[in-house]
Order: sequence, then structure tokens, then C-alpha cells
Amino acid sequence: MDSPTTRRRTRTAGGARRAGKGTAAPTAPYATRRIPYFEVLDDAGLSLIEENADTILEEIGIDFRDDEEALQIWRDAGADVEGERVRMPRGLCRRLIQDSAPRQFTQHARNPARNVEIGGPNTVYVPAYGCPFVHDIDRGRRYGTLEDFQNFVKLAYLSPSLHHSGGTICEPVDLPVNKRHFDMIYSHMKYSDKCFMGSVTHPDRAEDTVEMAKILFGERWVDPDTGKPRTCVINLINANSPMTFDDTMLGAAKVYARANQACIVTPFILAGAMSPVTVAGTAAQTLAEAMAGMAFIQLVNPGAPVVLGSFASSMSMQSGAPTFGTPEPALVLYVMANLARRLGVPFRSGGSFTASKLPDAQAASESANTLLPTTLGGVNFALHSAGWLEGGLAMGYEKFIMDADQTGMMQTLLKGVDLSENGQAMDAIREVGPGKHFLGCTHTQANFKDAFYLSPITDNNSFEQWDADGRLDMAQRANARWKKLLAEYEAPPLDPAIDEALLDYMATRKAAFPDSNI
Amino acid sequence: MDSPTTRRRTRTAGGARRAGKGTAAPTAPYATRRIPYFEVLDDAGLSLIEENADTILEEIGIDFRDDEEALQIWRDAGADVEGERVRMPRGLCRRLIQDSAPRQFTQHARNPARNVEIGGPNTVYVPAYGCPFVHDIDRGRRYGTLEDFQNFVKLAYLSPSLHHSGGTICEPVDLPVNKRHFDMIYSHMKYSDKCFMGSVTHPDRAEDTVEMAKILFGERWVDPDTGKPRTCVINLINANSPMTFDDTMLGAAKVYARANQACIVTPFILAGAMSPVTVAGTAAQTLAEAMAGMAFIQLVNPGAPVVLGSFASSMSMQSGAPTFGTPEPALVLYVMANLARRLGVPFRSGGSFTASKLPDAQAASESANTLLPTTLGGVNFALHSAGWLEGGLAMGYEKFIMDADQTGMMQTLLKGVDLSENGQAMDAIREVGPGKHFLGCTHTQANFKDAFYLSPITDNNSFEQWDADGRLDMAQRANARWKKLLAEYEAPPLDPAIDEALLDYMATRKAAFPDSNI
Repeated sequence: MDSPTTRRRTRTAGGARRAGKGTAAPTAPYATRRIPYFEVLDDAGLSLIEENADTILEEIGIDFRDDEEALQIWRDAGADVEGERVRMPRGLCRRLIQDSAPRQFTQHARNPARNVEIGGPNTVYVPAYGCPFVHDIDRGRRYGTLEDFQNFVKLAYLSPSLHHSGGTICEPVDLPVNKRHFDMIYSHMKYSDKCFMGSVTHPDRAEDTVEMAKILFGERWVDPDTGKPRTCVINLINANSPMTFDDTMLGAAKVYARANQACIVTPFILAGAMSPVTVAGTAAQTLAEAMAGMAFIQLVNPGAPVVLGSFASSMSMQSGAPTFGTPEPALVLYVMANLARRLGVPFRSGGSFTASKLPDAQAASESANTLLPTTLGGVNFALHSAGWLEGGLAMGYEKFIMDADQTGMMQTLLKGVDLSENGQAMDAIREVGPGKHFLGCTHTQANFKDAFYLSPITDNNSFEQWDADGRLDMAQRANARWKKLLAEYEAPPLDPAIDEALLDYMATRKAAFPDSNI
Repeated sequence: MDSPTTRRRTRTAGGARRAGKGTAAPTAPYATRRIPYFEVLDDAGLSLIEENADTILEEIGIDFRDDEEALQIWRDAGADVEGERVRMPRGLCRRLIQDSAPRQFTQHARNPARNVEIGGPNTVYVPAYGCPFVHDIDRGRRYGTLEDFQNFVKLAYLSPSLHHSGGTICEPVDLPVNKRHFDMIYSHMKYSDKCFMGSVTHPDRAEDTVEMAKILFGERWVDPDTGKPRTCVINLINANSPMTFDDTMLGAAKVYARANQACIVTPFILAGAMSPVTVAGTAAQTLAEAMAGMAFIQLVNPGAPVVLGSFASSMSMQSGAPTFGTPEPALVLYVMANLARRLGVPFRSGGSFTASKLPDAQAASESANTLLPTTLGGVNFALHSAGWLEGGLAMGYEKFIMDADQTGMMQTLLKGVDLSENGQAMDAIREVGPGKHFLGCTHTQANFKDAFYLSPITDNNSFEQWDADGRLDMAQRANARWKKLLAEYEAPPLDPAIDEALLDYMATRKAAFPDSNI
């Protein structure tokens, strides 16, 4: 752990307020916990689930679809391959992972001050991913565009409590499917200097991501000490649960792994549909699938960074719809975080989930019931931390602002209790004594400014003041804030030669094949 | 722990839905945790705060105001009394508490099936307390009336996830201050059969509470085994922080303690005003004040049930207004819960706090950020779990419904992970296999109904269905629900002779002195 004191000083209410000035505040690049993990199972319970995961891998196996190379890789590693079904001897996947996968790694940003450490005691809060729609309270719900995408890149850049620019924040539906990855990657590179995620919807798009990253990072791309590429892109490789990987995801994973870029292997599970309806069953299956994917990547390129991902929702017994912010997925998260620590790999899960269509009380409570477990359980890469609405179908402007406030609170929580002399404050208690108040005492004066997290969007005023201010609710205050932030936004400087090279690359590649919506 | 399996079976989504039928569902009378506590400090940190609390008691002392009897009690116990300032030798308070205060006790309800166990691994979720105003989205904010009070008693009775009727849920401002306690106590007794809280605003009102409880409980009032009164009332004794108890609270505490009724001793702290601005300072002061109050009660009547209470808010550095749902009070809660377990007394804190004036996203996120720590930290008596708005100034109808949904979720969370064969669900994974879905498999069919917490007020439908349903937000759905519950409410039967005796007592007492608003 590098000196957290220095880094943490800026992560205060003051820091949060300084973010409103058009450029990103000089904030902590990621959070480092000083509080314990919350764990719900003991060693015996965790071992049972690990045993079950190995039984799934050994007896039932995992399908690797439409990828003969993947099957040959598994045969060579000693797995039992029958058709597309791969059965791994007990312990094989764990051993492959533990032999070569890093416990923690650095994702490099174009601004080195914004590099993030993924794994260990660190948490990186990341915007939501993959929403076809966007929502704000003025215009309601509509398909996302490139302008929306860029707006969210800018908002993430300006949010001191978000450490990452994310990936497919919303789908720019105004661009052809087979070329929109260029503009998304370029937008992350141009409008933010934080880390970003690459395209995974086709191996060629993964290659484009890598090529553009090479242009962006220039001579920083290769680490002179190792001669290997630095990890500059992180990517979301989802399993087709149950127990299946398809050629699209495998293809992208191979591209990124061979370039030493990071892959998050996430079984995407609506429990009851893609896994059993129980927490322990969902956890065992998630562990099996994720281990299979991560072990495969270690076989492709030993040492390539991998992250164990878990996405699990519950389900409405009335309609079959996925439900969020419920207790069962929180329990899955706590269990999986623990299993990832035992395996020795970084963990991705959680965020700010909701099924609500609005930035209302449902959205807020469901998100809090996901984000607190994300924080307490020890998620390292907290994708979907800001903006999620409607089960991930919509990216909300007001929701984004509300969530970014919550991720700020989480980082104060992670600091834990200050037990220094100043933290103990015995001098203050001695100075004030019974029946007096602390408002003016020396200790309060010295500590007041940074003592408490201050939200930029909650209203703590009297009823009368709130009435005089127009009786706004949280969503209305968040609406004013995202507009202010976007109005004040200034892009971080980008070397014009690099910018031009990126634009040239995109122009050449876009001209090389026709538009398509597949 | 008595058999939690039986009690828990009814605490499901099904149970929640059955609550809408006019009478309280046959639900679990309280929650019993099967997950660990979340703790943020280690032994050394906790010992440091305990040492500081003893230093406060020994060096600075606590004022016991306008109560010569209290000062004499302290002199007799070996404390150093100087004017109204009482300084306790190190360890005295802890020893007095540990010598006689119960670690856990039963509060008896008029329906014995609704008795609650306070302390140990149990959590009792209780409505909010003390609000002068009420709020609903139809009529906005207004002063509370007896009708509102009774409405909330009825709603708490009908909420399977609330275990207690509470106390001064809202102030019935339409009644004179010096007589409204009669109607509040009677309303709890008449319109609910759950446990309730007594009046503490004057020793005479505490006496009235005890007398009415004797009438209600009849021959159940005295435990034949011990010859002592059963604990049928629990009461909120607040310290006047910093480090002061006043004669009103001391007077009520003595009445209840001598009748073997339970006292929650709560330093009420807006940190920065009534305590230092730091977590460790607030915790040390809270522990000192609470120990002084609980030790005093043990001196008054050794063995009388006491609960260590902690109420701490943060503060806006802009306005000085208290703020809620922030990380610092959550850290205080985790620390205080741990200190109470080390002391060996039940713990009261948390709830569903918010500064918001509306049942909006602010209310929901601030409440979730309080209620989850309440649950994970191990609060035994979770006062203020439902209804709180506006920093406790208003009791919200929609907020009550939203919060009662959240306390239901908390109880699913407390059950933890089912590691039985059925919970592991390996048969389901074997039956389904790669690439299929679990919706129709044997295990899903057998477990689907009770697998996931189902909220009665969240909307998980498609956007199109939600649109067709009128695009309601959470507050609007909660509005429909409280109206439906009140429309269907049926009072639990009360022996007419007891009812008459209660009414006679009230009539006689009310006639004995003139109305007053003091």
C-alpha cells in the first residue's frame, strides 16, 4: 500500500466540491480500504462451495463454443474434451490461475496520476456499462447517441469519486454497430484521461482497441523492465451462463490476453434462469465458470491480468423479471468476494443496480443495497457504480450524479476510524465539559471543514428553507448539477500528434469495410 | 437461541404479501441473525475507546441535574460528587452494569406470540419516534394528530417486518401536552398487540404508563417464578449530551427501573455540537454517558433491564444542520455496537434516517445507508426503522411503507446463506447442464416461491408495462399501499373488561388535573 494519507487528503467534501470547475479535481486515483471485509461464510462454508465448483468443472464441464483453438488449448492442458464440452480435472483451473495470474495489477491511464491498482485492498469505482437507452428527467427515456456517450465520459472525468472512464457507458445507437467501437474508444481517450475499457463484441474490435491504445500510449505502451506491453485496457468477457463461453468472447479474450491487457471474466447470471435459485448454488456455478475462463486466459498467455467477475440478480416470482438491490445477490457478492480473495485474483462485482425506470426512491434504495455490499465485501473493480437504471437498459443522467455522490461516501467509509490523538479528541471533551457545546471549541474549529462527508446534492436545510428554495427533490437537484458540470467541462489536453494519429487510424479502418448493424 | 427455523419460515415474500389482509400476519416476532457482525475496529482500538470513556467518567464527570436523590445514590456508590457533577472511579460503571444488568431480556407483548427478545443475536425493528409532523404525498406536511398516531400504530401492526408498535410515533398535537400520553399508550394497547414504549416526558406520565400496563397485562404482570414484574414496557431515556442527565429523564428512569421496566439510555448527539466532530471522540463520549446512565439504573434497581443507546448524526459544514445517512455516523454505529457487545448489554441505534422532506431518492439512499449498518453492525433494538423524514421532524406515510419493505429485506439478509443440500443445488446444476436454462428444472420448481425476497412496492416490470401502469414512482406505489392497508385493517381482539378498565383509568386521571401544553 502506498502512502494513503497523502492520497486521501483530497478525497473530502472539499474535494468533491472542487470537481465542479471544468477540469477533474486532483483526487485519489482509487480507494484503499482501512476497514475489514464483511464476510458471511466461514472457512468450511467457503471450502464447500469451492468443492462444488470443482465438481461442476470435473463432472459437468464447460462448453467452449465454435472455437477449435480453445478446445486444443484445453486438450494440451490435460482437460477431457468431448465435442465442445471441456471437463477439467479437480484443481487444474485453480492451479493454472495461481501459477501465473497476478494478485493485483496496475491499469495505466494516459495521465499516469490516474493509473489504478486493481486488486488487493483497492476499490476502483467505474460507471455503468452497456445501456442501449439514456434517461433524464427533462426528456425521459430515449436511445443513446454518441453525444450522450461523450457526456457521460465527461461527467465521469469530472467526478472525483469515479476512478475510471468505463467502457460502453451507453450504446451510441446513432452509429453503425460494426463501427461504433472506434468512436467510443476515441471518446474515452479524447475527453478523459482516466483508464477505460475496450471493445469485446468482435475480435477485430478488440484488435482495434489495442491498436488505438498503442497510439495513445506511444512509448509508454511497452514496459522497458519486462519488455511486455503495459496493461492499458481492461475488458469485460462475459460467460454465456450456464457453463458456456462463445466464440465472440473467446476471440476477444485471446486478443487481449496475448497483448497483456486485462480480462474480467464474468458469469452473467439472472439466478433462477442461468443458475439455481439459491445463493450457494449460484456461487458454486459462478466460481466454476469464472475459473474456467481465467484458467483459459492463463493458458493463452501466462501472467496476463485476469479479474474474477460475478454478476447475479434475483428474480420476481410474479413475472420472471430480474430484481435488484435484494438481499440474495448481496449474499452472492459477499461469498464471491471471499472466494476471489482465497483464489488470489482481483474481484469485480456490484455497482449501483436498480430495476427502476426513474431516479426515484426505488432506484436509490436498490442502488444503496448493492453499493454498500460492493464496498464492504471488498470489490476491486466496481463496474456499474454510476448511472444504472432499468436493469441496465438505461443510463440515467440524474442517476449518474446521485450514484457518484454515493461512491464518494463509500470512500469516506473505507477510511475507517481515525484513532490518532486528534481523532480521539479527548482535548475537545476536556475543553467543553458537561452541558456546553462543541461548536466553537478549538478542536472543532481545527477539524470542522473536513470532518464530515458533504453531499453536493442532498438537502439538509430546514423545511422552511427547502420550501423557499422551490421544494426540489433529489432528482431535480441532480438535474441541475449534471448540466452545470457539462457546461463547465474542459477536456484534458491531448498531444495533437496523437489525436491526429488516432483520427487517421479510425478514418482508415472505417473506410476499409462497409457499415453494418451486426 | 430458540428454534429459528420454525420462526423464519413465515418471514418470506409470501409472508409479506399476507400482511395485506387486515390482520397482522403470523410472522416471526423478531429477527435472529445467522451472519457475522461487521466490525471496523480491532481489540486495541476498542480498548482505547473504553479507556477514554473511563477517563471522561473519572476526570470530567457527568452532571446529574436537579435530582438530589440521584446524587445521593452516586455518593453511596463511591462516586465523587461535587455540586451536580459526578465523577466515577475507573471501572465503577462497567462493574455496576456487568454485576446486574441482563445481557438479553424479553419484552412481553399483550399477545405472547409477539414477545420480543432484546439483546444477543436478535434484532427488533421499531417504527420512528417523536415526530411533531406527519407527511404524505397527497396532503404534504402537517402537524400530527391522534388519528395519524393511530394510523401508524395500525400500519406497524400490519407490517410483518416491524416487530414493535414503537412509542411516540408522531406527536398527537391535537391533544394537550400533559394528557396526550394517555391516548398514545391506549392506542398502542388497543390497536396493536405488539410491544410498545412508554411515556418519558414526566415521571407522572411514566407512572401512568406503568399503571395502564398493569391493567392490560393483568395477572401476567408479575412473573410467578421471580415475584417481580415482567418487563412489558421499554422506554427511551436520553442523555442531554454532552455529559448531562436532567431531572425529567432521571425521574422517568427511576419509575421504570423500580417497576422492572426496560430503559434505553441514549446519548443524543449531533456530532460537532454535542460531541467532538470525530468518530472516536463521539464513541468515547457516548460510551461514557450511556454507562453512567445504565449504572445509575442498576443502582436504583439492580437487574432492571437496560439498553445501551447511541444516536449520532453528522453535520453540514455549510449550515450546521444535522446530516444523515453519511459514512461517519455509520462508523460510530459499528463501533458502539461492538462496545455494547463487549460490555454485555443490548444495543439500540440506527434506523432509517434522512434529512429529506420527501419520500424521494435522498430519503431512500440515506435510509439505506443507515439501515444496512443497523443490520450488519448488530443493533438489537432498531428504533426509527420506519417513517422518519426531515431529521425526525416528520413521520411519512409513504416513507413508512418504503422502510417497512427495507426492514423485510434486512431480515432475509440476516438469514445468511443456506448450505444445506437443497441450498447447494448441485442436483439442479447436474440436471440443467451447459447452455440450458433453470426455469423449469425440478429444483427451481420446488424452491421458486420462497427463493427471493419480493418487495410489494418496487416495480420490476418492463418499461412498456410500467408505462401502461401509469409510470408510477416508488412513493406513488407506497401511497396506494398504505391506503389499502388502513382500509383493510382489523383491530386485534381486546378483552372488553380490560378495555373498559383502561378507559376508566384514563377518564379518572384526565379529570384529576387541568389541561396544559407543558
